[in-house]
Amino acid sequence: MFEFELLGKSGNARLGIIKTKHGKIETPIFMPVGTQGAVKAVTKDQLLSTKPQIILGNTYHLYLRPGLDVLKKFGGLHKFINWDLPILTDSGGFQVFSLAKEKNVKGKHKTEVILTDEGVKFKSHLDGSWHFFTPEFVIEIQKIIGSDIIMPLDVCPPYPVSHGTAKDAVDKTIRWLVRSKNTERLEHQALFGIIQGSTYQDLRKESALKTVELELDGYAIGGLSVGEPTTFLYEMTEVVTDIIDEDKPRYLMGVGTPENIVECVDRGVDMFDCVMPTRNARNGTLFTTYGRLNIKAAKYKLSEDPIDPECDCYTCKNFSRGYLRHLFNAEEITGMTLATIHNLRFYSKLMENIRISIKNNDFQKFKYNFYKKYGNGNGS
Amino acid sequence: MFEFELLGKSGNARLGIIKTKHGKIETPIFMPVGTQGAVKAVTKDQLLSTKPQIILGNTYHLYLRPGLDVLKKFGGLHKFINWDLPILTDSGGFQVFSLAKEKNVKGKHKTEVILTDEGVKFKSHLDGSWHFFTPEFVIEIQKIIGSDIIMPLDVCPPYPVSHGTAKDAVDKTIRWLVRSKNTERLEHQALFGIIQGSTYQDLRKESALKTVELELDGYAIGGLSVGEPTTFLYEMTEVVTDIIDEDKPRYLMGVGTPENIVECVDRGVDMFDCVMPTRNARNGTLFTTYGRLNIKAAKYKLSEDPIDPECDCYTCKNFSRGYLRHLFNAEEITGMTLATIHNLRFYSKLMENIRISIKNNDFQKFKYNFYKKYGNGNGS
Repeated sequence: MFEFELLGKSGNARLGIIKTKHGKIETPIFMPVGTQGAVKAVTKDQLLSTKPQIILGNTYHLYLRPGLDVLKKFGGLHKFINWDLPILTDSGGFQVFSLAKEKNVKGKHKTEVILTDEGVKFKSHLDGSWHFFTPEFVIEIQKIIGSDIIMPLDVCPPYPVSHGTAKDAVDKTIRWLVRSKNTERLEHQALFGIIQGSTYQDLRKESALKTVELELDGYAIGGLSVGEPTTFLYEMTEVVTDIIDEDKPRYLMGVGTPENIVECVDRGVDMFDCVMPTRNARNGTLFTTYGRLNIKAAKYKLSEDPIDPECDCYTCKNFSRGYLRHLFNAEEITGMTLATIHNLRFYSKLMENIRISIKNNDFQKFKYNFYKKYGNGNGS
Repeated sequence: MFEFELLGKSGNARLGIIKTKHGKIETPIFMPVGTQGAVKAVTKDQLLSTKPQIILGNTYHLYLRPGLDVLKKFGGLHKFINWDLPILTDSGGFQVFSLAKEKNVKGKHKTEVILTDEGVKFKSHLDGSWHFFTPEFVIEIQKIIGSDIIMPLDVCPPYPVSHGTAKDAVDKTIRWLVRSKNTERLEHQALFGIIQGSTYQDLRKESALKTVELELDGYAIGGLSVGEPTTFLYEMTEVVTDIIDEDKPRYLMGVGTPENIVECVDRGVDMFDCVMPTRNARNGTLFTTYGRLNIKAAKYKLSEDPIDPECDCYTCKNFSRGYLRHLFNAEEITGMTLATIHNLRFYSKLMENIRISIKNNDFQKFKYNFYKKYGNGNGS
């Protein structure tokens, strides 16, 4: 089962609900990223304490490790990681192309990519072995994973990219989407279409129109937040959300900062995912109502204040900035865990407040107050 | 306040209770190590779920980082780390000498030590700065820390060491203990004496007799588990526990494996601490009723079993060996956390079972059954 219901609007900001086999998701929603079957640095219960409604897994990573034999044996990702709420899996398209760009890092194999009409051949970043993803195979993998929302294999070009290359990516993504749609999936699995087109308005329009024509369960905006100026992020989002049917969820992939999320909710986006709250947490960068802070800074040494006085997370209810700073300076893993709990709760609370404001048809006021406190993000 | 009551015996194994300002401690007890104000890889609540009754902090580490200014500002370690149960702090004697032995490791400064009658001058392993610990200053630091059980500065020689050097260490440790005892401490703080003597029976006896004469709140056996053969560990423990008054708690410092603990409970020890359950957990070595296992091994890839079928910890109740193996192989921090929770609960459950068996005057039967299942430790 998969249903989306639009419950209300405040300007272009939308309040909705998604129903899946594993439960309901209130939108706008932020989805914590659990690439390898774990949201980094937290356990299931710590994650649950931050009130997520859905998490992400990644097809590329899960296919390579733990591998399909393990996922089959355990009866899918939900059982393997003991997670009862919905899971969305990314297709691996983004990873195949983005990992190919990365320089060889210590202990990792340089990945290579050979793109054909049939699919994409790539070298594993783990052991250098060759693998071949087709649109059909990527659906097959996600059947084994058993996720609730699955994504089709797409071509995700880097930024900047020529109009010609971006056009090729759009065309191939559409052709692959048709093949993905024609591949049988599990009854409960929803398939989204991914809209590409880089930073070109005409390509984004073309991609959106052709994707929407295929009548999928939801629509994702891909290929953004890959290094382009933020103005493009907002502009491309607007172009696309203007085209997508109102009765389908819109998912902006890999975005972003709290400001990005507020701005894109204002442009009609319903779903977001990003490694930012978790990755930043592990580096000691914490999000607060009054902007970001770097907890390692000397000025927090003697601070008895919580990270964010307005936060209700486990970390803020129990520990001070001074203690958190000590944990980071002493390189205690516990610091990363406590920071992750806080950042994830900050994001989920932000979404809660956004939903309340839309319900009250008050989103612009929310946005005004958000910026008033959060400023340019470089607060407290 | 500090009281110890001996509740019963089963052979030489002792059941007791320690009362402190921050609560009761049932003995025999294992004390998880939180060197820098955090038991590594777990939060306070995860630690509490493993049912500890007391944790350790380290004077040497806490003095260097977060430092006395921070501990003063927060009103002691309990408030700084938000911990309500008892804390024991090691004096730093062991660290000063053991860190001096270590070769220069990446990013750390080689430490140096100058030992005089007055105290010990040492270089910080963090920044190479010079510091001077005297018996009096170490008590002062622990007053600021506010721990419930405090340890005096001692001289802890390496293994092997000559009889002459070991004798000097015993003599100096006794002289320093007198000075420690004569230094004012907080009303609720218990001071233990540390018995040295390396692996020499005569020196252990001499050290024990002279330490006991000083009538302290409890007695610690130091300088063992530093590389000597296990037979010495047991022999020296016996020599010392034969001498210490029955009405005082005996604490075997830095010990050890589950087998070590069972053997030394059998020789009249009441308190243990060791980094083994936490450090091993982070390396993927897990303790089970049926011996140790290395969770990274390929044979666990498809295992749906919990780490230990007889364990009631969060990890065993929720996750499989297969998932744990994946987390370790994928280098997910969460794997270290889940393993730490399990190992700490294994140790605390071991102590629970030991206490029950002593209460039932059945310790030998417990010991027999323990070895029958646990074997040589290299199980499942």
